[in-house]
Amino acid sequence: MLNVMWGCLVLVLFFISGSFCINPNAEKELDKVTKLPGQGFNVNFAHYSGYVTVNEESERALFYWFFEAVDDPSSKPLVLWLNGGPGCSSIAFGLAEELGPFHIEKDGKTLYWNPYSWNLAANLLFLDSPVGVGYSYSNTSSDHQNNGDVRTAADSLAFLLKWFERFPEYKGRDFYITGESYAGHYVPQLSQAIVRDNHGLKKPAINLKGFMVGNALTDDYHDHLGLFQFMWSVGMISDQTYKQANALCDYESFLTPSEQCNKILDQANEEIGNIDSYSIFTPACTDKFSILNHFLRKSNRVGYLRRSYDPCTEQHSKIYFNLPEVQEALHVHKRNSSFKWVTCSEEVSNGWKDSPKTVLDVYRELIESGLRIWVFSGDTDAVIPVTSTRYSIDALKLPTIAPWRAWYDDGQVGGWTQEYKGLTFVTVRGAGHEVALHRPKQALTLVKSFLAGTSMPSSEQISNS
Amino acid sequence: MLNVMWGCLVLVLFFISGSFCINPNAEKELDKVTKLPGQGFNVNFAHYSGYVTVNEESERALFYWFFEAVDDPSSKPLVLWLNGGPGCSSIAFGLAEELGPFHIEKDGKTLYWNPYSWNLAANLLFLDSPVGVGYSYSNTSSDHQNNGDVRTAADSLAFLLKWFERFPEYKGRDFYITGESYAGHYVPQLSQAIVRDNHGLKKPAINLKGFMVGNALTDDYHDHLGLFQFMWSVGMISDQTYKQANALCDYESFLTPSEQCNKILDQANEEIGNIDSYSIFTPACTDKFSILNHFLRKSNRVGYLRRSYDPCTEQHSKIYFNLPEVQEALHVHKRNSSFKWVTCSEEVSNGWKDSPKTVLDVYRELIESGLRIWVFSGDTDAVIPVTSTRYSIDALKLPTIAPWRAWYDDGQVGGWTQEYKGLTFVTVRGAGHEVALHRPKQALTLVKSFLAGTSMPSSEQISNS
Repeated sequence: MLNVMWGCLVLVLFFISGSFCINPNAEKELDKVTKLPGQGFNVNFAHYSGYVTVNEESERALFYWFFEAVDDPSSKPLVLWLNGGPGCSSIAFGLAEELGPFHIEKDGKTLYWNPYSWNLAANLLFLDSPVGVGYSYSNTSSDHQNNGDVRTAADSLAFLLKWFERFPEYKGRDFYITGESYAGHYVPQLSQAIVRDNHGLKKPAINLKGFMVGNALTDDYHDHLGLFQFMWSVGMISDQTYKQANALCDYESFLTPSEQCNKILDQANEEIGNIDSYSIFTPACTDKFSILNHFLRKSNRVGYLRRSYDPCTEQHSKIYFNLPEVQEALHVHKRNSSFKWVTCSEEVSNGWKDSPKTVLDVYRELIESGLRIWVFSGDTDAVIPVTSTRYSIDALKLPTIAPWRAWYDDGQVGGWTQEYKGLTFVTVRGAGHEVALHRPKQALTLVKSFLAGTSMPSSEQISNS
Repeated sequence: MLNVMWGCLVLVLFFISGSFCINPNAEKELDKVTKLPGQGFNVNFAHYSGYVTVNEESERALFYWFFEAVDDPSSKPLVLWLNGGPGCSSIAFGLAEELGPFHIEKDGKTLYWNPYSWNLAANLLFLDSPVGVGYSYSNTSSDHQNNGDVRTAADSLAFLLKWFERFPEYKGRDFYITGESYAGHYVPQLSQAIVRDNHGLKKPAINLKGFMVGNALTDDYHDHLGLFQFMWSVGMISDQTYKQANALCDYESFLTPSEQCNKILDQANEEIGNIDSYSIFTPACTDKFSILNHFLRKSNRVGYLRRSYDPCTEQHSKIYFNLPEVQEALHVHKRNSSFKWVTCSEEVSNGWKDSPKTVLDVYRELIESGLRIWVFSGDTDAVIPVTSTRYSIDALKLPTIAPWRAWYDDGQVGGWTQEYKGLTFVTVRGAGHEVALHRPKQALTLVKSFLAGTSMPSSEQISNS
């Protein structure tokens, strides 16, 4: 009763004082997305997008897009998804290509529903992090060239604390952080920041239960070791380049390798040719494919056939998220006229300030803290391949709880899994770097198992998804 | 003129004496396939099938199926294709699943045309070898349990010499031997037998110009080394099994490994689960898939879409090649009533007598002889993977002529290639053990380049196939 009265009072104040004093509930309602351009279908869940200012002084503001679960959101956990780069937008990749509900058609203007969206399993929050990524920005523009792991974690924590004020019904809700690629740094680092920030609190707003990362940069030495082995094992590079890469890049940083390591990586790139290293067995997005696929797509629209794999999906978001009407619908702040939305910001990645060579120490701390930790790997990725992740996990020297075995999805092997004390490892067969893009159904099975805290399905179990 | 008269005389004798004295040309005409059950489309090339007796005493007879080239057969080379096992039928795999013109529909009764058939590039001969395989047989039935590499090569040579008598227009024609898997033994061994048999002849009937093998068993030590590395690198087996396999199987025979090596291979199989090891990223043939695919297939028959990949293709040939009307059309000898055509004979493989641990010595001899030698590898095969072939070739220590690079097919990377002095290596991206099944278009590009003796296409060239 008190709450209701207080709410009314604040609402009145809000209308009187404009933005001076905003009711959290009103802020949330202002963020509600009512009409999304190109959405020719209805959805039965609410979604919200907008900004949370994480630093008042510099005016750093992070953009989020939040989707309530399709069914019964109040009983479902909250899951945050982060993309990496550094500099890449979670809206561009996680949402629009992979596990979000809205994917973009070839025309860059219309949307279709992703039947394997993770908001079938959870309330799903995408965050463009840090500033300079996607629609997130700082009014102190030098901030864009001075991001790094430490500030990213601090700003993301600040974002979450404020976001829970705006969406108080999620305070204390079971919360999980997920992400891929360079988010292999962000996710454990943010988890660590939350665990430390929660220390001593009896009922913390952020009720972090665990995290899950895929094709995640984890430990530069082991990631390099696995990368070169994988590239050689699938035939992408010559014997000579393999040997030289191992010799010259072994203790190098992934983000800023030395000149001699860079030289051999250039040589490897030359040999690899024009393939999509993020998914080595699918076609690359070339002009020719674009035309061909347009035709195939048309033919594919028959019956219940799944739409064919589209390697040019990134191109479509470049159109969609630059449309003024889309930005208006998503409550994107009007920035200077030269602003162009990009999927990955070079300004951000080139200016990256701090990136430790390993986050295995963070894993050790968080395993100790009792968080649920899952690591997955699409096994056709040659950027952070399955071999890299195997070497990195092996370096943790964790006892085995359940040995290596195949897991199944509708009678087919979905990949392999091993359960260690404190960490579960899952591979996804035939998936590239963006697991939920290449194997959407298996990725949904994966996140469901992770959230339920159960083992991956065995051959006897058939998933309902 | 003399030839014509002689031919007429023999033809007369043939009609008088029955099979006692047969005109080769008449034999060929008897082998002509006129009506093939389930073939609801016309082809503009002649094809022939039947037997060549390779040993009169034991009555060993090898079955062949020969397809003239689609266009201008008289100007095209002759290519023999052999499958391995040992014990597997070249009709079942090479012809009906991979590179032959006639593939079999899901009903097991009707045929469809393979638009990437290798008889677009050559006159194409399939041989079921040795006796006990496919329709080939011996009337000395113990022969079926006593095959081995040596007799297989000798019988295949005897087959070829007699076949050229039946098809004299191919005598002296440029001739190439191709094959895959255990034919990694057959193909170089038969090539060696021919080269040795031709020694001193001025105009040999068998004008062998070269050979090409794919995912070929070559050298047990290096093949094992590569196999375990590949399985670990794509996540099929545990760290522990990987280590143990390397320790316990390193100098073992591929065909008959020791008990302790077998034990660890069983452990690996257990971990791998129910996947198609011959093509690790495609679905396995399961009951469930069979039903699903039937539906997809129907939807797929629209526009110009390629038919979807069918993992159950081997099942369809088991129906087709057991049909009495098919056997009659193919001039299959009536054998005892219990005869059942199988894709791979366990009787043959289990009774295999001799199999050297390496054929690298044969490569050395044949490289010296100047034959054109190409080795290819589908890079998603976990039976004889690309790593095995890389290690085996490396062991030959050949100088490099053209370094490792990507090759292209219609603007996409088809795989990678390196040209050594005396041997060209080509990988086929995304293809499994049966390269022409999984990547039919790229396989046709491959055989065209091999037969032309040119390098694989670079990015600038667009194939016409």
